[in-house]
Amino acid sequence: MSEYTVVGQKLPRVDAVEKVTGAAQYGADVHPAGMLYGKIVRSKHAHANILSIDTSEAEKLPGVRAIITQDDVPSGRRVFATDKVLYLGEPLAAVAATDPDIAEEAAELIKIEYEVLPVVQDVMEAIKSSAPRLHSDETKEGPNRRDISAKIKELSRDEADGNSTAIRKLEAELENYADEVYYNISAESHTEAGDVEKGFAESDIVVEDTYVIPRVHQTYMEPHVSVASADSSGKITVWASTQGPFAIRSGIAGTLGIPLTQINVIGTTMGGGFGGRFGVIITHVPAVLLSQKAGRPVRVQMTREEEFLDGRPAPGCVIKLKTGATKDGHILARQALAFWDSGSVSGASIGSTIRVRGVYKIPNIKIDAYGVHTNKSGTAAYRAPGAPQAIFAGESQLDDIAEQIGMDPVKFRLMNMREEGDTVPAGGSEPEVGYKETLEAVADAAGWWNREADKNQGWGVAVGDWTNGCGPGGVYVSVHEDGSARIFHGSMDITGTDTAITQIIAEILTIPYKNVTIRRGDTDSAPYSTGSGGSVVTFTMGNTAKLAAEDARRRILELAAERLNTNVDDLELRDGAVHIITVDPPKSISLGELAAYSLSTTGGPIVGKGSFARQPSTPALAAQIAKVEVDPDTGRTRVLKLVASQDVGFAINPMAVEGQIEGGTVQGYAWAMMEEMQYGENGNVNPGFVDYRVPTSADLPTVESVIVEVPAPNGPYGAKGVGEPPITPTLATMANAVNDAIGVRITELPIKPEKVVDALKNNGHGA
Amino acid sequence: MSEYTVVGQKLPRVDAVEKVTGAAQYGADVHPAGMLYGKIVRSKHAHANILSIDTSEAEKLPGVRAIITQDDVPSGRRVFATDKVLYLGEPLAAVAATDPDIAEEAAELIKIEYEVLPVVQDVMEAIKSSAPRLHSDETKEGPNRRDISAKIKELSRDEADGNSTAIRKLEAELENYADEVYYNISAESHTEAGDVEKGFAESDIVVEDTYVIPRVHQTYMEPHVSVASADSSGKITVWASTQGPFAIRSGIAGTLGIPLTQINVIGTTMGGGFGGRFGVIITHVPAVLLSQKAGRPVRVQMTREEEFLDGRPAPGCVIKLKTGATKDGHILARQALAFWDSGSVSGASIGSTIRVRGVYKIPNIKIDAYGVHTNKSGTAAYRAPGAPQAIFAGESQLDDIAEQIGMDPVKFRLMNMREEGDTVPAGGSEPEVGYKETLEAVADAAGWWNREADKNQGWGVAVGDWTNGCGPGGVYVSVHEDGSARIFHGSMDITGTDTAITQIIAEILTIPYKNVTIRRGDTDSAPYSTGSGGSVVTFTMGNTAKLAAEDARRRILELAAERLNTNVDDLELRDGAVHIITVDPPKSISLGELAAYSLSTTGGPIVGKGSFARQPSTPALAAQIAKVEVDPDTGRTRVLKLVASQDVGFAINPMAVEGQIEGGTVQGYAWAMMEEMQYGENGNVNPGFVDYRVPTSADLPTVESVIVEVPAPNGPYGAKGVGEPPITPTLATMANAVNDAIGVRITELPIKPEKVVDALKNNGHGA
Repeated sequence: MSEYTVVGQKLPRVDAVEKVTGAAQYGADVHPAGMLYGKIVRSKHAHANILSIDTSEAEKLPGVRAIITQDDVPSGRRVFATDKVLYLGEPLAAVAATDPDIAEEAAELIKIEYEVLPVVQDVMEAIKSSAPRLHSDETKEGPNRRDISAKIKELSRDEADGNSTAIRKLEAELENYADEVYYNISAESHTEAGDVEKGFAESDIVVEDTYVIPRVHQTYMEPHVSVASADSSGKITVWASTQGPFAIRSGIAGTLGIPLTQINVIGTTMGGGFGGRFGVIITHVPAVLLSQKAGRPVRVQMTREEEFLDGRPAPGCVIKLKTGATKDGHILARQALAFWDSGSVSGASIGSTIRVRGVYKIPNIKIDAYGVHTNKSGTAAYRAPGAPQAIFAGESQLDDIAEQIGMDPVKFRLMNMREEGDTVPAGGSEPEVGYKETLEAVADAAGWWNREADKNQGWGVAVGDWTNGCGPGGVYVSVHEDGSARIFHGSMDITGTDTAITQIIAEILTIPYKNVTIRRGDTDSAPYSTGSGGSVVTFTMGNTAKLAAEDARRRILELAAERLNTNVDDLELRDGAVHIITVDPPKSISLGELAAYSLSTTGGPIVGKGSFARQPSTPALAAQIAKVEVDPDTGRTRVLKLVASQDVGFAINPMAVEGQIEGGTVQGYAWAMMEEMQYGENGNVNPGFVDYRVPTSADLPTVESVIVEVPAPNGPYGAKGVGEPPITPTLATMANAVNDAIGVRITELPIKPEKVVDALKNNGHGA
Repeated sequence: MSEYTVVGQKLPRVDAVEKVTGAAQYGADVHPAGMLYGKIVRSKHAHANILSIDTSEAEKLPGVRAIITQDDVPSGRRVFATDKVLYLGEPLAAVAATDPDIAEEAAELIKIEYEVLPVVQDVMEAIKSSAPRLHSDETKEGPNRRDISAKIKELSRDEADGNSTAIRKLEAELENYADEVYYNISAESHTEAGDVEKGFAESDIVVEDTYVIPRVHQTYMEPHVSVASADSSGKITVWASTQGPFAIRSGIAGTLGIPLTQINVIGTTMGGGFGGRFGVIITHVPAVLLSQKAGRPVRVQMTREEEFLDGRPAPGCVIKLKTGATKDGHILARQALAFWDSGSVSGASIGSTIRVRGVYKIPNIKIDAYGVHTNKSGTAAYRAPGAPQAIFAGESQLDDIAEQIGMDPVKFRLMNMREEGDTVPAGGSEPEVGYKETLEAVADAAGWWNREADKNQGWGVAVGDWTNGCGPGGVYVSVHEDGSARIFHGSMDITGTDTAITQIIAEILTIPYKNVTIRRGDTDSAPYSTGSGGSVVTFTMGNTAKLAAEDARRRILELAAERLNTNVDDLELRDGAVHIITVDPPKSISLGELAAYSLSTTGGPIVGKGSFARQPSTPALAAQIAKVEVDPDTGRTRVLKLVASQDVGFAINPMAVEGQIEGGTVQGYAWAMMEEMQYGENGNVNPGFVDYRVPTSADLPTVESVIVEVPAPNGPYGAKGVGEPPITPTLATMANAVNDAIGVRITELPIKPEKVVDALKNNGHGA
């Protein structure tokens, strides 16, 4: 039996009722009196010089209250394009009107003259010297660019056996690039340990492949929406559907050059985020500028089409990966060269290329990663940013090695996995980690060791590692006169984190879960909180909540000692009351009585404060096994079984943890099998859920979750962040299962039926 | 020069811009989507049995969404009358409709059958055995009731020289009452010290009079308004124009029998309160019940007429007062018998009758006070509840004694005033008090000692004492990355208290006042705060804010020590930065840098917590002098000079303190000269500002304020509550000035022109 009464329990979510009844207030539900409707005017070309923007006709339209362009940004920080557009849908202006239709009509009336430029959409095209350059100020043509040639040469393949025409063409082209000087490079990242040349030389087998992972959208249900209201004192209120209200606040302050105290950000209930709702995104600043100009509140809300054109999706990438191993299964070296599609701006998760290392003992590592500009919107985080892409390459290739040396893929992984005390690539040694336990747990649960497969059926396994982030947070706790408690904080709920915080407070105050309410404040009222992403919330806010509850408990015991005329040392808080443990019969006083008493004592009401920012996190592993059946005629893959284990440290709410494991696994499945942003030559993209397919409940069997608990020393009750790990291995799990079923190694996602059929044809495999 | 840089300064109010631009959100500005309009159905008789309430016709009216009566109150606690109404305008039902006109029409369609009962409006009539009894369960006819007869006999007058027909009649009647058994008594209060019989016997002169003070309304600009929204989970949100959101929360919880956690009260900007916005008043519970029944938000807003019929004004009273003194001016005994008009319910400020003691050394005291039921609405607090009434009697009579013994009224008061170390009637001895300093200050400022008066001109002086209350409070302070700070708390701003709290935080954090913002939370988010009344806010919340800022300062110094690699003892917080005082050249780090640093350290964001509830307060005196000119033909009194001094302990914001002194003095002037709720025989009242006159800026010269600062040991920076004292002496000041001008002692307020003319006729005085 658990030593705890509230944490560790499968309790219903605190926001369950408001979510299911529709009472929860999303961004689109915000409608301050006098609100106007904003519309962003977007580029109709993916690459063009802007010759002129003429708003005069639009201004004449009755009902139009404000039109803004970059000229209306006092700080001069780029909000709208002026001289040049870099992707189709890039914002050029914005309109606010009394009616959404008028706003749309006005947007159409704004005349923009373009000088159309050549478009580049493919990272491998974009780095060529012949490619159109997106940023004219890109002058660094020095050693780094030439380096790319050298790296491509290092990774030259002996034979071009890629399993699709596109991949084979890519491989061939990479050879040709070797003497080029590269352009459109937005960022780079290099990591090296040991000596890969030596490692490959000592290897019995060297496997090499090029992996192509498409750009995918976070496909949160609620499109971006902001409502801004600037009052006559200059105070700005922004209702934002965001993962990080405090980041929005500093982002707006920075962009507009105004003090933090003049901005209040109210986070509305999020209709999904998954990393796509961080920082100052798209709608916030135009809403503020329009409200300032119109003198009325303005809502700017994106359509689904705008989401696909101008959201900040996960970057696609091309990863060339080479691994060397001994014939008895020891991995000796791994080298990667990655080109990440960062779109029109810098960024993309290029640093995550290091995830190809996995949790394995690999003595020699060399990783070179580049961000590449293309005529697309910028990218942002998506659940374990960059990890699913890198791990897809790494874990796919591990299976190919296991196959070549004739070793069971699970045993091969277990043999190479690091354990407590092993050297960690980033430095230091591993703490107590649950890598092997987690992989063994999924293998046991899935029936791996006795697995059976009919014709065209196969099993795939993969693991993905991730370490939760950590950030600053503050929590206040108050105890009421009826013995109930209230939490006040500023972090956005990200699918259950409010519930976990509530459980922790109830646990420490020894009161029923239902007697604790949680309330989120805006940035003007709540203490600073880090953004809700990077799996930080339960770790950071859980620790913060513990500190706050412990602070309240100190005051409770102090009050009780005063009231019961005894010492704090003789007291125990239990079952919602303080008991004197040294007297018989026992004497006690309830929390409600103490809270009432506190209102008339010098020390005042019972309020606890927690403030926290940083403690080292501990890595977590997600391991998954899929059993699939592939129809060789149609190429369609059906998932027969999908089991996901994860080391969560400690499951504060096992039901919520299972929800995270299921959700992440399904998103990984979708990326593997169907999701893909497809850009046309003119820069257009599949802009809705008809052309951009996401899974439905009919696509998948129930994901079986297996919770492993290897406590994190600094996590609350040992908890690790659980949100991100489950998406990381699924891409490779699916590819490995398909390969096991029909002997086709798909290296370019998604594993669409037509691609499977093509691959079967090209490799001679068949039904 | 002051040792402080922010407190003690005349800084503009934090809410100045929102108030003057109309941006402040008052109750009537709250309009949630789908809101219905509520209307309270009120009794058309002042005293009647209810035979039936028929809502059927009203229910049929299109647009009506809910109708409630007492049957809809699940707890059974009285919200509406069912069997009997006790005053005209008493709530019987309420309606919610889609439009205010429909709600009003529906209210008219509700058919109520009455059996009309005799009405009693006058307290002296109500106590007679022949009077109609309001509460049939009033069975206590025992010793207390007979006691009243004895008390009246004790206070029998030698001669009936009252200066108005009404007073003379009252005096005569009181004699006749002596053998009666009394009824309609709602409450009683008795205080005795020494031996008044002996005191009177030893006195050279004994003065006796009966004072009649009318019921007056607080006349806040904003009528009562509540908006309630009950959601599907049962959670209730109430937007209330209130002085005490936490009291509203517990009031609603108690009335409806639901947990505190299910109610959130949001205090909207108050359009004046003055004591009339405490507790659960009138509109809140009907709004909640209507919203629960209709399933939509409901606003219930009173008209000005409803305010007069069913507000909770200040009680009127009849005070029979007798004072004995030696011929050289020592007061030996004072006895009072008071009947307070509590209307239909219990209460009225009967305990304040003890204020007739004043701040004088009076060895023998006897005070008997009764609350009396009449067919009027209940009463509530109004700025120093009960004190203006009692002090009017006490200070008027002091002047009569001074006149009889030929002593200067200021000197007479100074001679009898208590000072530090003197015994206090309530027990213990006086701390350091500023009674004499305050009276001397006003005398000096007004030019009392060289005062001149033309014909029909006169000077009046009076003093009033009051001690601020104290209550629980909580304050949180955060420091931002740009070095600014933010206060979060739950107490309502009562004309400048937010400004005072802001100054205190700025002072302690050593940052500019403009860099501190203050934000009020609702009861779901803010720590518990006592109601904003009883002059408690600056005392309680000021102390709480100090604790919070000091807590933040501790964390700031800790962080700086960590960051600068030194000890806290070597550090000083000054000018918004922490400086190492032990090194040369000095080294420092700004608050902004420390706040940014805090986001990445174990300890987390800079947040300070203050929790406070109780420290003894120190009494404060208000002293006022008026110079008037009375036109004997018209009876009109013109104020030529009005000077008000007040011991405020320490003026945290002298401009705000002056505002309080001016406001209180003007309200006292209004009560003295013009305000009066006049009830007709059928229970009707003068229901608007045409018939109920309040002063305009044309009625008065500028009130000259004189700030006296005798620090309160437990006040923040020595501050005492300043809101209530200034209203206390003005009623007597005006009466004493009129008496000095034309030799007419008005004992029944207000001092209306016609009353002055009558009095002049009756006493033979004239122009």
